[in-house]
Amino acid sequence: MTEQELPGLYRGYIACLNEQDWPNLGAFVDDDVRHNGRRIGLSGYREMLETDFSEIPDLRFEIQLLIADAQGVASRLGFHCTPKGRFLGLPVNGKKVRFSENVFYAFKNGKITEVWSIIDKLAIEAQL
Amino acid sequence: MTEQELPGLYRGYIACLNEQDWPNLGAFVDDDVRHNGRRIGLSGYREMLETDFSEIPDLRFEIQLLIADAQGVASRLGFHCTPKGRFLGLPVNGKKVRFSENVFYAFKNGKITEVWSIIDKLAIEAQL
Repeated sequence: MTEQELPGLYRGYIACLNEQDWPNLGAFVDDDVRHNGRRIGLSGYREMLETDFSEIPDLRFEIQLLIADAQGVASRLGFHCTPKGRFLGLPVNGKKVRFSENVFYAFKNGKITEVWSIIDKLAIEAQL
Repeated sequence: MTEQELPGLYRGYIACLNEQDWPNLGAFVDDDVRHNGRRIGLSGYREMLETDFSEIPDLRFEIQLLIADAQGVASRLGFHCTPKGRFLGLPVNGKKVRFSENVFYAFKNGKITEVWSIIDKLAIEAQL
């Protein structure tokens, strides 16, 4: 696993999410993964994603910017989707919205061990 | 200007902000800089930062994560500060809060030409 391989690996991870290929998630995500400072583990991570797709049936991850070095990967993800009910505490209720997520990933042995994610809540508020 | 120089350059930019060394801001930020898709230019950028420091007198930028490659710089910035009034539409009103910003920068000729920033509004809401 070298630094040069990280972007390709990361694109594989995003394809896995878009295909909702949950049995394969463990190929990209470490058993002890932490998300925004909380250790949720691979099963908690999968649960979080399954909940996201259940609450946002047309959820799709689109990489808009990707920066990688020996520290890890940073990605700006774009979304254009339709949360069914409340989302981030906002009454989206079936409106189609555009927003971004700026997210950092640390890797160990080719798997994601830590994620620091921020979703652009202000952008969604501006569309409601 | 090589990819290897970007982290050092970026640390210089953050030091410039923390010193509120506005006459020197143009050494780091391009005249035609865009911020979250809007062309605000160097003067608009300086104005935005001066407003930030005026509304948050103890504002200080702390680099928590820094990832850089030929595409640019991604940084996770940490803040522990005291907005005087409303901040991101929230009634912070002089409470000291901790939050992060995940932000991407594109460079041209050693200067920042574009910024894509998201501040963790959810984290602040949770502290109010």
